Amino acid sequence: MQKGTAAIIGGGVIGGGWAARFVLMGWDVRVFDPDPEAQRKIIEVLANARRSLPGLSDVALPPEGTLRFHDTMSAAVDGADWIQESVPERLALKHKVYQTLQEHCAEGAIIGSSTSGFKPSELQDCATRPAQIIVTHPFNPVYLLPLVELVPTDKNPPELIQRAKDILTGIGMYPLHVRAEIDAHIADRFLEAVWREALWLIKDGIATTTEIDNAIRYGFGLRWAQMGLFETYRIAGGEAGMRHFIEQFGPCLSWPWTKLMDVPELTDDLIDAVAGQSDAQSGMYSIRELERTRDTNLVTILRGLKAQDWGAGKLLNAQDARVAGVPALPDDLTRPIVTVERAVPLDWTDYNGHMNEARYLQAFGDATDRMMLLVGCDADYIATGGSYFTVETHIRHLDEVHAGAVIRVETQVLLGEGKKMHLFHRMYQGDRELATGEHMLVHVSLETRRACDPAPHVAGTLARVASAHTALPRPEGAGKAIGVKG
Amino acid sequence: MQKGTAAIIGGGVIGGGWAARFVLMGWDVRVFDPDPEAQRKIIEVLANARRSLPGLSDVALPPEGTLRFHDTMSAAVDGADWIQESVPERLALKHKVYQTLQEHCAEGAIIGSSTSGFKPSELQDCATRPAQIIVTHPFNPVYLLPLVELVPTDKNPPELIQRAKDILTGIGMYPLHVRAEIDAHIADRFLEAVWREALWLIKDGIATTTEIDNAIRYGFGLRWAQMGLFETYRIAGGEAGMRHFIEQFGPCLSWPWTKLMDVPELTDDLIDAVAGQSDAQSGMYSIRELERTRDTNLVTILRGLKAQDWGAGKLLNAQDARVAGVPALPDDLTRPIVTVERAVPLDWTDYNGHMNEARYLQAFGDATDRMMLLVGCDADYIATGGSYFTVETHIRHLDEVHAGAVIRVETQVLLGEGKKMHLFHRMYQGDRELATGEHMLVHVSLETRRACDPAPHVAGTLARVASAHTALPRPEGAGKAIGVKG
Repeated sequence: MQKGTAAIIGGGVIGGGWAARFVLMGWDVRVFDPDPEAQRKIIEVLANARRSLPGLSDVALPPEGTLRFHDTMSAAVDGADWIQESVPERLALKHKVYQTLQEHCAEGAIIGSSTSGFKPSELQDCATRPAQIIVTHPFNPVYLLPLVELVPTDKNPPELIQRAKDILTGIGMYPLHVRAEIDAHIADRFLEAVWREALWLIKDGIATTTEIDNAIRYGFGLRWAQMGLFETYRIAGGEAGMRHFIEQFGPCLSWPWTKLMDVPELTDDLIDAVAGQSDAQSGMYSIRELERTRDTNLVTILRGLKAQDWGAGKLLNAQDARVAGVPALPDDLTRPIVTVERAVPLDWTDYNGHMNEARYLQAFGDATDRMMLLVGCDADYIATGGSYFTVETHIRHLDEVHAGAVIRVETQVLLGEGKKMHLFHRMYQGDRELATGEHMLVHVSLETRRACDPAPHVAGTLARVASAHTALPRPEGAGKAIGVKG
Repeated sequence: MQKGTAAIIGGGVIGGGWAARFVLMGWDVRVFDPDPEAQRKIIEVLANARRSLPGLSDVALPPEGTLRFHDTMSAAVDGADWIQESVPERLALKHKVYQTLQEHCAEGAIIGSSTSGFKPSELQDCATRPAQIIVTHPFNPVYLLPLVELVPTDKNPPELIQRAKDILTGIGMYPLHVRAEIDAHIADRFLEAVWREALWLIKDGIATTTEIDNAIRYGFGLRWAQMGLFETYRIAGGEAGMRHFIEQFGPCLSWPWTKLMDVPELTDDLIDAVAGQSDAQSGMYSIRELERTRDTNLVTILRGLKAQDWGAGKLLNAQDARVAGVPALPDDLTRPIVTVERAVPLDWTDYNGHMNEARYLQAFGDATDRMMLLVGCDADYIATGGSYFTVETHIRHLDEVHAGAVIRVETQVLLGEGKKMHLFHRMYQGDRELATGEHMLVHVSLETRRACDPAPHVAGTLARVASAHTALPRPEGAGKAIGVKG
């Protein structure tokens, strides 16, 4: 994984989200923001990110980078590989910022702007070196949502665009290359259209903020978390497909629905109505509480999609593979093998933050899967019709663990001969032992679902590990029945 | 749970979805659709719904109702309590349908229209009894998404509106009462605005269907699955709140982004572009495959939200409570107690549809939670600072089980005295034994996290069950260690 130094210019909600993502992905981060509150705010955003992002991954993230605050822009950008500008949406201000920072930053650095509205050509205007400025527009919360709209102009060399994509992918984002610059890029055009329509509905007294939010989150919002507009409508067209759908739905565009396309005036009355309804809807929660709720929900949704290897979850699996590299048996087989190392994700815990009972077995199951993989029972082998099934499990819960803690499972092979694989997993947080899992597996034919011998290369590798592990002391708790004192 | 007879007039994707939801919630369903393909299509939709809906619930659904197909509208609506009209969006056709069915249906029946565009007053026009016609506009897939827009007029008596809400809530939906009728109700106005904008982006060559879908599902789509527009923006406003957000973002409405507000012409070229790009994006999957992927993703997202008791997941928990009623110890304590009865949900299974290893423990954990509840260790008790923690678990996997299968856990108390609760769970599908789970729990103080005696009423109830269960034979497999033959 490529790492480097990122300078964050402007540390509000968006800048703070960028800082958190870079730091948690191992980058060193330097922040400049003249607001005296910026440091406090960014540290709060980082706390939220620490709570949610590491557990999205099924492998341990690299060690955190450093986070420093600087008094001047020149000190912040000095030596930075990536400079992310997230100052307020005023073009003159942005131009001034670029002029100052281009006096001090490296020519090879990438300057990404978080602008939601300006085109990159507008940003490049008057710049000393337009070639290093692009739009990289993220979505809140930046540390959880993968989308970033990458909008270049023909002034940006292809090498720089590719490097920007690689860096963004490396920190777990999805750079959507917007090929033609346009006001508000792509996603915010949709958000603006919905926002405009929503204001009309409130102004005309048709619906409240609560009703509008429920119309979204109980209906099409659920669809759009996993398929977008077109794939969803392709399905709605049924067997006749997309063309049928357009022919059926398309004419609605010229119906009276479009009558409210002019822009609602933002009167004080309208602002009062929206703010007042929003207070009634969500005022019982602080913004921090809402953020935590949102983040827990997003982690839950993202990890669900990950299990399905679909949409944003597929991106996360690809990121895990990049972070973890290719798994291999360690050279030293005289010690137990580390088969799991990961942060406890938010969706594995109860409302008090303790890891749920069943998730201990999920971690042990992952450890077993990894052990299978290491002895050659990988996806290719399973495709040939053989695999190991767990027939018996014995878990001892020794201590509690919370969301965000990094857990490690060490695995000892107690027996690996014939059809049997007998494993003993120990789960730790640091040196603290949390649980043990003893598991008996049997090799089966996936066709007959009955026990059978594994292929020679699997049997051979397993026997080699088991033989090396016989030198290890038999774990305390192994072979014990429930209720019998160890 | 209220049940009755529903007539489905028009059996396309939407009518089929209604039929499936009613049948799976225990209603008898009668379908009329002159299309000779309607029966095949509805049976296919029902198969998808059977695969996904029952497992959304953490309790067993009532037995399925019957599904009958009728040759005439009059036979279909005869005796129906609810009539759902989902015929094509042509007002004259809908008027004709209402005239025919009102000649044959009961005066007390509710006639709901799935129309996405027409106002209820337009539907009631020319009807024999306008008072029984309302708009009940659902979202695809009807059997999974809870939202239904309920739009009445002042011709509908309040009693009927309330009855309609109760029935829709009873089949697991969320009736959003739209207080003022308007073309396209609420949600479809947003969808239309986004659709219009998306067509412009394609027409102008800015983005493809794939790029647009990714801009949605990797970004704001994830947000909208759990919070809507306003709650999300309230957070974006940060500590300064909604008013700050509007003041910052609101003026964008009059920026040039609004220049594309006129209606794009649906030329053949544009239709070709959309259909062609959609083929390139999703053509490798059949519509049935896409439906199954969508449904699995939706179940995963909905069940994730359920675990957080938020958004659509909170609706599902309320529905489970309505279906299950109040749990109580059975009068007959001479037999093991049924502590879990539910369908295996799609998110508990691997890509081959087998229940994952860790989900056996999740089901046993749910059985343990239920047993705790039945002896008085409920939320109120836990709030006083006492609870049971699992210290040891022994699972034997005896047979496999697939998504959709109804599993049942029967629980025998092996010991219940002092701080200890020793349980033996047996999991079945019908008579087939799938697994056993032996669990040792210890009562703890949630403050000190150390073992302590339970309160007298909990200890007393547990002892009463344990005493009754001593008459049961000791289960085969209890007290055994791994690798030791039973």
